[in-house]
Amino acid sequence: MTDFGKITSGIIEEFKRLLGNSAVIYEDKQALENYSSDEAGGKYYSHMPDLVLKPNNSKQISEIVKIANKERIPITPRGAGSGLAGGSVPLYGGIVICLERMNRILEIDKTDLVAVVEPGVVTNDLCRKVADTGLYYAGYPMSVETSFVGGNVATNAGGSKVIKYGNTGHHVLGIEAVLPNGEIIQFGGKRRKDSSGYDIKHLLVGSEGTLGIFTKIFLNLIPRPGKNVDLLVPFRSVDEAISNVSTLIIESKVLPTAIEYIDHLSIILGSKYNNIELPFQEEAGAYLIIQYEGQDKKELESIYERVGDALLNSGALDVFVADNRTNSEKIWRVRRNWLEALKFFDPYVPTGDVVIPTSKIPQIVRFVKEISKEYNVDIPIAGHAADGNLHPAPMKPQNISIPEWKVISEEILSRIAIKAAELGGAVSGEHGIGFIKKELLRKTKNLQYKIMKSIKVNIDPNNIMNPGKIF
Amino acid sequence: MTDFGKITSGIIEEFKRLLGNSAVIYEDKQALENYSSDEAGGKYYSHMPDLVLKPNNSKQISEIVKIANKERIPITPRGAGSGLAGGSVPLYGGIVICLERMNRILEIDKTDLVAVVEPGVVTNDLCRKVADTGLYYAGYPMSVETSFVGGNVATNAGGSKVIKYGNTGHHVLGIEAVLPNGEIIQFGGKRRKDSSGYDIKHLLVGSEGTLGIFTKIFLNLIPRPGKNVDLLVPFRSVDEAISNVSTLIIESKVLPTAIEYIDHLSIILGSKYNNIELPFQEEAGAYLIIQYEGQDKKELESIYERVGDALLNSGALDVFVADNRTNSEKIWRVRRNWLEALKFFDPYVPTGDVVIPTSKIPQIVRFVKEISKEYNVDIPIAGHAADGNLHPAPMKPQNISIPEWKVISEEILSRIAIKAAELGGAVSGEHGIGFIKKELLRKTKNLQYKIMKSIKVNIDPNNIMNPGKIF
Repeated sequence: MTDFGKITSGIIEEFKRLLGNSAVIYEDKQALENYSSDEAGGKYYSHMPDLVLKPNNSKQISEIVKIANKERIPITPRGAGSGLAGGSVPLYGGIVICLERMNRILEIDKTDLVAVVEPGVVTNDLCRKVADTGLYYAGYPMSVETSFVGGNVATNAGGSKVIKYGNTGHHVLGIEAVLPNGEIIQFGGKRRKDSSGYDIKHLLVGSEGTLGIFTKIFLNLIPRPGKNVDLLVPFRSVDEAISNVSTLIIESKVLPTAIEYIDHLSIILGSKYNNIELPFQEEAGAYLIIQYEGQDKKELESIYERVGDALLNSGALDVFVADNRTNSEKIWRVRRNWLEALKFFDPYVPTGDVVIPTSKIPQIVRFVKEISKEYNVDIPIAGHAADGNLHPAPMKPQNISIPEWKVISEEILSRIAIKAAELGGAVSGEHGIGFIKKELLRKTKNLQYKIMKSIKVNIDPNNIMNPGKIF
Repeated sequence: MTDFGKITSGIIEEFKRLLGNSAVIYEDKQALENYSSDEAGGKYYSHMPDLVLKPNNSKQISEIVKIANKERIPITPRGAGSGLAGGSVPLYGGIVICLERMNRILEIDKTDLVAVVEPGVVTNDLCRKVADTGLYYAGYPMSVETSFVGGNVATNAGGSKVIKYGNTGHHVLGIEAVLPNGEIIQFGGKRRKDSSGYDIKHLLVGSEGTLGIFTKIFLNLIPRPGKNVDLLVPFRSVDEAISNVSTLIIESKVLPTAIEYIDHLSIILGSKYNNIELPFQEEAGAYLIIQYEGQDKKELESIYERVGDALLNSGALDVFVADNRTNSEKIWRVRRNWLEALKFFDPYVPTGDVVIPTSKIPQIVRFVKEISKEYNVDIPIAGHAADGNLHPAPMKPQNISIPEWKVISEEILSRIAIKAAELGGAVSGEHGIGFIKKELLRKTKNLQYKIMKSIKVNIDPNNIMNPGKIF
């Protein structure tokens, strides 16, 4: 562990001169507290920063980092604070660099088909602005309405459209970052290809703020798809639902935009919370929500007829087609509000985030059921079936105290994550390691971990950049 | 520079015991010579290995590497030898590890939609095997008929389908590699997502054998597209051709599979070599070759009618549609045989490989024209217009001697590459750095280079793994 330096009043004055008074928060406990945690279990996992800075540009960030590096003061970069692994919790106090002021969409380049944005842009704001130009940004984490693009890149966020478009990293053409020594370096840019040396850009994607702070991001844009259709497909059992995922992809002959999975208990709680009723909600063991995009209604019809037949022939209880916005919204609301619904019934519900090869979904679901029985704890599951990325969410039984539950729920999620790794998966599919899954990472990627760590030590020898995360 | 160790007769005996006699080539000068160069300028750039080994599995490679690391003997991994940057030339002698025996397609997994292959599989063999199952592997370097998958991954090879599908790295879900210390480690696998720590897999992609030897590669598969249509579109000028690329993408509303660029001189030489005549070949300053994929003829028709109209309205001399294999083949032959055609007329022609943002293509083409005049040298250009990846190929004038030409052509390509970097591009788009572009890399990515180098030193402290490449 690094022996961190202290933030003196002299340093605070320097930051005030650099950023202006309003961009420097300190001493005000209530104001600081807003930057002490993220969406990963609120009060469970929080730590107060000594100082919050709100820089406006990369030059300011570079200056801050240079000072912090010299004085060995820990820096925690923070986007929207919507992370689910504790990545933006300032574990060792020090400085939180909040990127909310760097929220400019710098350019939507219709010739090169690239958007250039600052890290603090809300993902959905970008999606909308891009759509206005007739183009499309395909990044779509479930937190799209709140999360920042910078955070999406820092965790290599996924979402429901990964099967067709890849996760956030697939869209990143370039990153400008401030490295732990304060250097501002751009990796990649508007060019669409680059075989000139190691791909450092992809090393930064998913590095969760441990290698530097992103200050500019270049994102790939594509033509806007014309229309989409959503299918809601109940199955009697999980196995029937899941065994259909890959036949679905092959049969439909085009990649679906999404194949989402949501289990019986999630449906029950979700429909209660959303105050809607879904067909077959009592009988169905699991639902798939499937989305296709196409140029026109005709194309979509031919797809969903082909797919629908295939599904009905292999165990679907029915196939509900939503080809207008209202019906689509009804289907997606339950999936998108899934975590909110669970939190409504249990504020202490944590979210797992395992990934396995698609074919192993039935095995991991079975394992979760066993764990559920063993601990006598309900564990609803939703997730991205097409990518094998599932979110099991153990719900606190009434008779267990909150401190006990923290221990038990962590144990449950750890056992599921380790099982996922044993099945050829990994302990995080899209949320990242943060500090919550550090031990799991070490356990399941021991050899790989050593290489990651050596890169971290190399680039951030003073360990000032988001210390305590990933490693 | 590392002080490399010598290969003793004792070491050779050890390798014979390990691999069997037939897998160990030494002393036989003629046999060794086959492993002394790649497609980057033959005799210009060659160096004899002391020893060629042909291992059969990762365990054997691990043993070889452990011995080499202990004795500090340089290792040069080699695939098909089809590289264009000298990446598989054994610059310091030592051992060439030839991967031609590791050519098994281990699995085509139709449930997880993943192909697992050894590095020595010829790319086209994989494409065909995958197609037989109703699926599709979207990697398609122009050398698809000869190059190995391992080499594609090592250079992050591009090709003509990058605009729609991304370059080779986009398809790689996992890599098993033998690292310079002999450890066999798998990064990624059949899972489609992973936010668990740094993305080392992407660091290996494009590392040109300097960080380890790939022994197993996991590739993403997708549904096979139904049909395709090819358009041949002559334009009076380069500017007219290029200014159409992004409108083309936006207008067609779907991503084309390819938008290839080929200039007047290339067409003239190509049609002579292929003994065919292309429409407008005297008047046209440049051609675009455009490909779309779709589920059926109708879908394709609606695309090419829309696109065709847009092109005719913005300067195309005509739009020729090939929707059957014979006509398609006629169009593509000139593009695919481009380099062979040039080599037929000038065996000393080197191939540049610059990448720029698409909008900068006219600027770089103009610059190449200036250079062409300044040196009084013909420089035909072909390339992947949609990605801004161009291959200028200076042709030796009769009156310049071969040694002089080596110096002059290198100077010409260097100046073009540096100009590309100044325009927001890079010195290699898809061929890699090898040893031919080392200086260019250092010049154009100075800050990034330091980080790359520190990673190299960290993972390969004895500098045994493809020394002299990239760095």
